Amino acid sequence: MSETLEEAAGERPEARERVQDALAEITALLRKHRLVEGLVHEQLEHAPVGDHPDRGGLVESLVTRQNKAQLQRKLDRLHPADIAYVLEALPLDERLYIWDLVKADRDGEILLEVSEPVRESLISSMDTEELVAAAETLDADEIAELAPDLPQEVMDDVFSSLPVEEREQLRAAMSFDDDMVGALMDFEDLQVRADVTLEVVLRYLRRFDELPSQTDQLFVVDRDERLLGVLPVNKLIVTDPDALVADVMQPPVVKLQQHEKADEAASAFERYDLVSAPVVDTNDKLVGRVTVDEVLDFVRARGEEDVLQQAGLREEEDVFASVWKSFQNRWAWLAINLVTAFIASRVIGVFEGSIEKLVALAALMPIVAGIGGNSGNQTITMIVRAAALGQFAREHAHALIRKEIVVALINGLVWGGVMGLVAMLLYKDVPLGLVMVLAMTLNLMLAASMGVLIPMTMLKFGRDPALGSSVLITAVTDSGGFFIFLGLATLFLIA
Amino acid sequence: MSETLEEAAGERPEARERVQDALAEITALLRKHRLVEGLVHEQLEHAPVGDHPDRGGLVESLVTRQNKAQLQRKLDRLHPADIAYVLEALPLDERLYIWDLVKADRDGEILLEVSEPVRESLISSMDTEELVAAAETLDADEIAELAPDLPQEVMDDVFSSLPVEEREQLRAAMSFDDDMVGALMDFEDLQVRADVTLEVVLRYLRRFDELPSQTDQLFVVDRDERLLGVLPVNKLIVTDPDALVADVMQPPVVKLQQHEKADEAASAFERYDLVSAPVVDTNDKLVGRVTVDEVLDFVRARGEEDVLQQAGLREEEDVFASVWKSFQNRWAWLAINLVTAFIASRVIGVFEGSIEKLVALAALMPIVAGIGGNSGNQTITMIVRAAALGQFAREHAHALIRKEIVVALINGLVWGGVMGLVAMLLYKDVPLGLVMVLAMTLNLMLAASMGVLIPMTMLKFGRDPALGSSVLITAVTDSGGFFIFLGLATLFLIA
Repeated sequence: MSETLEEAAGERPEARERVQDALAEITALLRKHRLVEGLVHEQLEHAPVGDHPDRGGLVESLVTRQNKAQLQRKLDRLHPADIAYVLEALPLDERLYIWDLVKADRDGEILLEVSEPVRESLISSMDTEELVAAAETLDADEIAELAPDLPQEVMDDVFSSLPVEEREQLRAAMSFDDDMVGALMDFEDLQVRADVTLEVVLRYLRRFDELPSQTDQLFVVDRDERLLGVLPVNKLIVTDPDALVADVMQPPVVKLQQHEKADEAASAFERYDLVSAPVVDTNDKLVGRVTVDEVLDFVRARGEEDVLQQAGLREEEDVFASVWKSFQNRWAWLAINLVTAFIASRVIGVFEGSIEKLVALAALMPIVAGIGGNSGNQTITMIVRAAALGQFAREHAHALIRKEIVVALINGLVWGGVMGLVAMLLYKDVPLGLVMVLAMTLNLMLAASMGVLIPMTMLKFGRDPALGSSVLITAVTDSGGFFIFLGLATLFLIA
Repeated sequence: MSETLEEAAGERPEARERVQDALAEITALLRKHRLVEGLVHEQLEHAPVGDHPDRGGLVESLVTRQNKAQLQRKLDRLHPADIAYVLEALPLDERLYIWDLVKADRDGEILLEVSEPVRESLISSMDTEELVAAAETLDADEIAELAPDLPQEVMDDVFSSLPVEEREQLRAAMSFDDDMVGALMDFEDLQVRADVTLEVVLRYLRRFDELPSQTDQLFVVDRDERLLGVLPVNKLIVTDPDALVADVMQPPVVKLQQHEKADEAASAFERYDLVSAPVVDTNDKLVGRVTVDEVLDFVRARGEEDVLQQAGLREEEDVFASVWKSFQNRWAWLAINLVTAFIASRVIGVFEGSIEKLVALAALMPIVAGIGGNSGNQTITMIVRAAALGQFAREHAHALIRKEIVVALINGLVWGGVMGLVAMLLYKDVPLGLVMVLAMTLNLMLAASMGVLIPMTMLKFGRDPALGSSVLITAVTDSGGFFIFLGLATLFLIA
C-alpha cells in the first residue's frame, strides 16, 4: 500500500511544470487535430450533419475521434484550476473547442477559476440549460460570484431550484459589492456549542467524509447563533477529549462584518496570519466565514488592478480579445490623455511667438515637462501607498510637502544643472542654460507639491487617491513645465 | 466560564478599527507626553542623568512617568503586527520613542513585521547585544529574513549561539534569493511514519501544547525522510483512529523545490487553494514547508513592487525617510528619464528649421508623442501580465501584433481624426490637420508593434519584461512621435 502511494506521489512533478506541460501537450494535440480537421473540412460542406450536431457538426474521421478521446482523457485528469489556465492561454476558437470537451459537471468549478473576460467568452458559448446545470453544482457563495456574468433567465432558474436556506444565502451574497467582505464570504462554517465535550465535537466531525477545505477552526455559538469563541482544530487535536468546549475555546482574533471593506479583511489576514475568520452581523450572530484562499485571490487581483489602472486599462483584458473589445477597454483613458495633451498644447500655443524667435525652446521644453512628470509620479506613488496602508495622517502633510520640496530642489539643482550645462554647450547660449536650470527646478518643486496635494485632496473628499492621480499629475507637470520654461524664456531671453 | 469568554470575545472590535484605534490612542498619548517633556526640557541640560540613562536620559516628571506607563501597558496588549503598524505610521523620533518602550522579548517578532525601510531605522537604533537577543527569540527561517539588515558581528554572535541543526537551517535559508521558494520556507513541518496508526499520531501530537500555526497537514516520510504523502489534519480528525497512516495519507497536491521561483509557488497556492505545501530536495527528501501566510505576504509585496517600479522608485520608501535616502531611492530613474528625454529633444533639434517656419508644429507635437506613449503602455501592460501568468506563447506573437495594429489603426483614425479637425480649425490649415491625423495613426501603430515586441524580446533573452519596459516604450513613442510628425510636416508642409 505504502509502495503504491509512494509511486503516486513520485509521479506528480512540481506545481508549475505540471500545468505548463499540460498546456504544451494539449496545444500539440490541438494542432494535430487541426491538421486532420483541415483534411476533412472539404467534406463538411456537402456531408450530412454527424452524430454531434450540437458540437460543431463536424464529420469526424477515426483519427480525429482518437485525438479527441486523448484530449478528453487528458482534460479529465486535470485540476479545474489547471483547465482554467489552459483555457486562458488559448485563442478563442481553440478555447471553445477545449471547453466543449470538458465534462459538463466540472463547468461550474472552471468558470469560477477563469478570469472575467475569458469567463464571458465561455458563457456566451453555452445555452441556458447548460448554464443552469453548471451553476447547480456550486455553493451559494460561488453562484453569487458568477451571477454578474449570467443571463437573467439562468439566474431565475437557479433561484427557483435552490432550497430555501441556500436561496437566502445566495440573495445575501449577491447583495455585496466585489470589494466588501460579504463578497469573499462562504457559508461552510462549522458550528459547535460551548457546553459539550470535545469528544462530542469529534463525534460530530466524524460524520463528515472530510471537513470543508480551509477549516482551521470551528465556531462556538449560543442558542441564537451568536459567536462566543472559536475552537482551533489544532487545539482540538492536542486537548483531552473530556474537556468542555467552553474551557478550550478562544476569543476570535478578528470578527469581520459583511459590509466592511474586503481590503481591511485582507490586511487582517496578512497581519495575523489567519486561515479563516468568522463573519458576524451587527448582533454578533455568525453569518459565515472568510478563508485565506479567497483573500489570496483578492489580493492578487487587487495588485493587478493597480497596475492596469496605471496603464489606463479599464479592466483586465483577455490577450485574445476582439479588436472591438480592446478598443472599448482602452478608449476612455486615451480620450482623457488627449484632453490633457491638448491643454498642454494650448499652453505652448500661447508662446508661439517666443518659439519663433528662439527655436531651441521647442527642442528643450519636453525635457522640462518630462522630468516633472516622472518625479511627480514617484511622490504620488509613495503617498498613495502609505495612505492605502493607513499610515498617512493629514497632520504630517506639511512636514511631507516640505521634505518633498527639498528633495525636488536637490534633484532640480543636480539634474537641472546637468541639462542646463548640456543646453549651454549645445546652443552656445549661457542665459538659455540658466533658464533651463531654473525651469527644471521650479517644475520639480511644482511636481513635489502637487504630488502631495493631489492624493491628499482626494482622500479628504473620500475618493480613492490611486484612481487617475497619475494622469492628473502628468497633466499638471506637462502644462506647468511648458508654462514655466517658456514663460521664463520669454521674460529673460526674448523680451 | 462561558460567560467570561463571551465577554472577552465581545470586547474585541473588528480587525481594522482595533489597530486604527490603537494608533490614535498612542498618538494622543505621545502628544500629551511631548507637551510634558517640553516643560521639563529646560531642566534636562542641567540635571544629572536619570534612572534611564540608556533610554534617552530624560529627567522624568511624575506625569511623564505615568504617561509612559500607560503607553507601555497599551503596547503590551497589542499584537506584534499591530505594533509594527503603529511604528510605520509615526515620524522617526516618535517611532524610536515607542520602540524603546516595547518589551525586548518582542523586538524580534516586530522587526519581522515592519517594512524594510522602517526595519532599518529601528535596527540602527539598537546595539549589538539588543540585536542578538532579539534574533535569538526567532526561528532559523525568521532570522534569515532579518539577516540582510543585521550587522555582521550580530550574525556571527547569533550563529555561534545556535544549536547545530538550527545553524544548518539558518545557513540554508540565507542562501536563497528573496524570490525563491527557499526564502519562503520554514522548518516547522511535522513528520510522521506511514506504518503507524492514527492513534499513535494523535498521541504524538498531544505532546504539543498547540501545533505550529498553519498546520493543515502532516508529512509522511520514510526512514530517509523521503516524502511519501501527506496526512491532512481534517482527514485525521474524521477517520477511525485504528486506521494506518499509509491507508489514509494522500499524495501531496504539489511538491515545491527550494530553488523554484517563489512566484510559481504562489501560483500553486492560489490555484489549488493550499494552506501549506511540502518542500523537497532533488532526492525527494523533505526539507521544510511553505505556508499560506508567507505566500500572502509575498504576493502583496510583489504587487506593490510592480506599482513602485512603474513609478520609478527603486524600492519601498518610508514616507518619513530622510531627504538623502529619498534622493538615493529616486535618482536612477530620473537620470534614465533625462537621457531618453534628451534623445527626444535631439530628434526635435533636427527639425528646428521646420519649426521656425511653422511654429504650430511645436505646439502640436507633444500630442502626437503623448497618445503614443499612453497607448503603448496599455499594450505592454496587457502582454506583461499575460506573460507573467504564463499565458503567452511566442507562436501567437504575429496574431497579436496584427490585432494590436488594427486597434491602433482604429484609435488613430478616431482620435487622430478628432485632433486633426481641431488643429485644422485652430490653425485654419487643412494640410496641417491631415498631417496630424497621419502622424497620430503612424505613432499609434509604432506604439502597438513596439508594445508587443519589447516585452517579447525581453522574454526571449530571459529578462523580466516588466522591468523598465514602460520607460523604453515611452522613449520610443516620444522620439518616434516627434520624428514622424515633424518628418511628415517637413515633407508635406515645408518643402
